[in-house]
Amino acid sequence: MSEYQLYCFAESGPAYKVAFMLSACKLDWQPIAVDFLNGETRTSEYRTQVNEMGEVPVLVHRGRKLVQSAAILSYLAKETGKFGGRNPQEDYDILSWMLFDNHKFSSNLGTLRFLVVFAKTGETPVTEFLRARVMAALAIVEKHLDTRKFMIGNEPTIADISMCGYLFHPESCGIDFADFHNLERWKADMAQIPGWKMPYDMIARAAPKRS
Amino acid sequence: MSEYQLYCFAESGPAYKVAFMLSACKLDWQPIAVDFLNGETRTSEYRTQVNEMGEVPVLVHRGRKLVQSAAILSYLAKETGKFGGRNPQEDYDILSWMLFDNHKFSSNLGTLRFLVVFAKTGETPVTEFLRARVMAALAIVEKHLDTRKFMIGNEPTIADISMCGYLFHPESCGIDFADFHNLERWKADMAQIPGWKMPYDMIARAAPKRS
Repeated sequence: MSEYQLYCFAESGPAYKVAFMLSACKLDWQPIAVDFLNGETRTSEYRTQVNEMGEVPVLVHRGRKLVQSAAILSYLAKETGKFGGRNPQEDYDILSWMLFDNHKFSSNLGTLRFLVVFAKTGETPVTEFLRARVMAALAIVEKHLDTRKFMIGNEPTIADISMCGYLFHPESCGIDFADFHNLERWKADMAQIPGWKMPYDMIARAAPKRS
Repeated sequence: MSEYQLYCFAESGPAYKVAFMLSACKLDWQPIAVDFLNGETRTSEYRTQVNEMGEVPVLVHRGRKLVQSAAILSYLAKETGKFGGRNPQEDYDILSWMLFDNHKFSSNLGTLRFLVVFAKTGETPVTEFLRARVMAALAIVEKHLDTRKFMIGNEPTIADISMCGYLFHPESCGIDFADFHNLERWKADMAQIPGWKMPYDMIARAAPKRS
């Protein structure tokens, strides 16, 4: 058994964040496939045995089940000494951007993506509302990257990894990234990190079916 | 000048979280009123001088501007030794629930509340969508509180304070809390913390007009 097990599914941005980190840190990990699209995270078994919040990812390490991607990324940064801040001020800034990512950036993009790509709602007032929020969040990050190579200075941190949540999934949910030059440049830089792979190359191909 | 200044407005749940913490820790603080409803957080002055993320709260301490309510709460818990975890595992759990709060609980409730109470959109597909998400998040917290006095064991922590974000604002946004018995009990316990006040007693009455 690997040192780390990750409850995940390949379509999940938050799961991708943690898989990216595990891979970039060269940790010994294996995925545990969660059948989200058929409702597994809503079952009482999942909620009592795996995660009461009903979400992925969940990282199993030393007998503990760790939830919330940003908390997991912080945990792994401490465990490995990689992709963390170099001082308390950088740690603060990293946490701030991960919070921004969780409540504005990945969250709205992920919800929009779910509706358009999987629930196939078509364009509705809800997708229009979410798309406006995504565009506002993208503009804030685009501006931030005007003067920085990565979110916190010149080296990638878990803040950057967190923000990659839904940016590499191949399906379009109607966001045109062409005007976000800094984001596109930053994405190319992120893809240079050893261990980076596209989401479906990171999880789906590796995930064994649970019997 | 007080030791802490808080950019805030009384209608903001995240601002209330930090005001609650400052008050409960008996810290020397003063509000700086932000005219959110007239667009101050969207101005380039606010974004360049106060917070590039375009949000409140922002806490000024020792010349630094600290953003993101959950990061501010963590900072204040470390500064004061109050409302934090007693060990790394509790710190982990606190961060996890603050993340859940930020991307599921306060965030959806705050957005719903903004549309219903301030934008006065009436019932729309968007409010219906958000209300379903709020109810799902409330149910998860209600269940969690089945076996606990507070979110992390028997003492209140910054996770509890974070989750109070929009629960004490008096305006209704159409959520019926009557079936959430644990939440109502927990809210009553939170209101017993010395320093607790209702949102508009905490900020609006204190906030000086900026000239």
